[in-house]
Amino acid sequence: MASIMKGSSIFELQTFCLITGASRGLGRTIAIRFAERFPAGSVVVLMARNAKGLDQTKSASEVNNPAVRVRTVAVDLGAVDEDTLRQNLGKVVKELGVSAGDFQQACIVHNAATLGDVSKNVTQHVSTTDIRKYWDVNLTSVVALNSVFLDLFPQGKVQQRVVINISSICAIQPFRSWSLYCAGKAARSMLFRTMALEEPSIRTLNYSPGPIDTNMQLQARTETADPELKTLFYDMHENGRLLSTEESASKLTSLLEANSFENGADIDYYDIK
Amino acid sequence: MASIMKGSSIFELQTFCLITGASRGLGRTIAIRFAERFPAGSVVVLMARNAKGLDQTKSASEVNNPAVRVRTVAVDLGAVDEDTLRQNLGKVVKELGVSAGDFQQACIVHNAATLGDVSKNVTQHVSTTDIRKYWDVNLTSVVALNSVFLDLFPQGKVQQRVVINISSICAIQPFRSWSLYCAGKAARSMLFRTMALEEPSIRTLNYSPGPIDTNMQLQARTETADPELKTLFYDMHENGRLLSTEESASKLTSLLEANSFENGADIDYYDIK
Repeated sequence: MASIMKGSSIFELQTFCLITGASRGLGRTIAIRFAERFPAGSVVVLMARNAKGLDQTKSASEVNNPAVRVRTVAVDLGAVDEDTLRQNLGKVVKELGVSAGDFQQACIVHNAATLGDVSKNVTQHVSTTDIRKYWDVNLTSVVALNSVFLDLFPQGKVQQRVVINISSICAIQPFRSWSLYCAGKAARSMLFRTMALEEPSIRTLNYSPGPIDTNMQLQARTETADPELKTLFYDMHENGRLLSTEESASKLTSLLEANSFENGADIDYYDIK
Repeated sequence: MASIMKGSSIFELQTFCLITGASRGLGRTIAIRFAERFPAGSVVVLMARNAKGLDQTKSASEVNNPAVRVRTVAVDLGAVDEDTLRQNLGKVVKELGVSAGDFQQACIVHNAATLGDVSKNVTQHVSTTDIRKYWDVNLTSVVALNSVFLDLFPQGKVQQRVVINISSICAIQPFRSWSLYCAGKAARSMLFRTMALEEPSIRTLNYSPGPIDTNMQLQARTETADPELKTLFYDMHENGRLLSTEESASKLTSLLEANSFENGADIDYYDIK
């Protein structure tokens, strides 16, 4: 069943929206730009490890649109199980006094991600504890949170469900020293491409945000083992060729306003005019 | 640095070869066909959970070529750390009284894999324990074992190192109900595409073996949630359209005899004439 809402801006609907990795960087800007667009009565929930960062994002999100309620959940997505996720979301819903039926739309943005240890080639990743931790943060929690969230807003209770995965060019192209990041992004993209086939009523988007001037790029240009790639990132920063979080979030909101993307599509910042 | 041996059959070199998932199915046939091709003095190590299955593969591998020594390591790749892997390989090496310098070539075949729970859509995968277990078996142990193995046979100690990942069309194409399998295969393929860039001296191949008449296909046609896909697999089996392990292993050995594939290439059974 195709979504009945395709073609109308997702920002026209009263929405319960969950954004992960919202304490800084792209996640913060997405939170601010989404919160200012949703109609009154909408709720934006910010999830990340850093409670202080979340509070700053909350303040910045509320100032433009006081009619949208913003809440924070400080949790380490690398160390959660499904019950913790359920309890945390349940607490927010209870505190707000809302239920699924109060919203026209549910939206989740899987933005949280780590670069991992890029000082190593893949043949130097040997600690099963470290490798497992990488999948915990970047894959396991994504799958579990996605299921917990969609279970809270089952089909029929809301008019539209939207799932956005922040992907990367690394999902389709390998980069030296970035084996875990590339593999994790390839897996995440595939998870949501599969979901798009399985659940055609959900508007599913893989959005690759381009190279953005965030802490992740700082890590990229200082810690990447491959000297050529490290220099490339350094030069991109020096020459002002990194995007701002505003530029990239703005393309994402445009995509969601047009709401005409193919379900499960992997759309890159540079694909969009 | 390009491999000095490209263009010569990998089976001409005295080899230490490790094959995972060798207790049955494609892994067993690869073991048998590899063991009969390697020159005298080569060693084939079979790794899997099932000790009895490994012993059967060992007997079948030794019968055609008694000049190749075959050893087994019964281990659950879903529950290992790097130390366990090192100890297990170290024990084999010690028992055989060999070291890296005794071989011209080291070869590892990452064949072990599980289909996972295909009775669920991705939105029904919610147990972090189960999801984590899937990556443990299909990703974490692959990365760690690869590093431990290549560390045992460092560049310079052997003339050539060969890494083969048994991939799948699911690495590039999503299938309903198969979200974890597709994501895991996409990640594995990407890990080895990255390694091919990082370590050009290693001959790295992603081989997609086609739909084979194994226990995994039995699970596919009996447990797949999506009715259309389930019927497709059922019909492929009924109509004799599944490949035998011999057919698929034979294409793999041809590829390795020609040894002309691009490093990191993802080559499908059906790509090969």
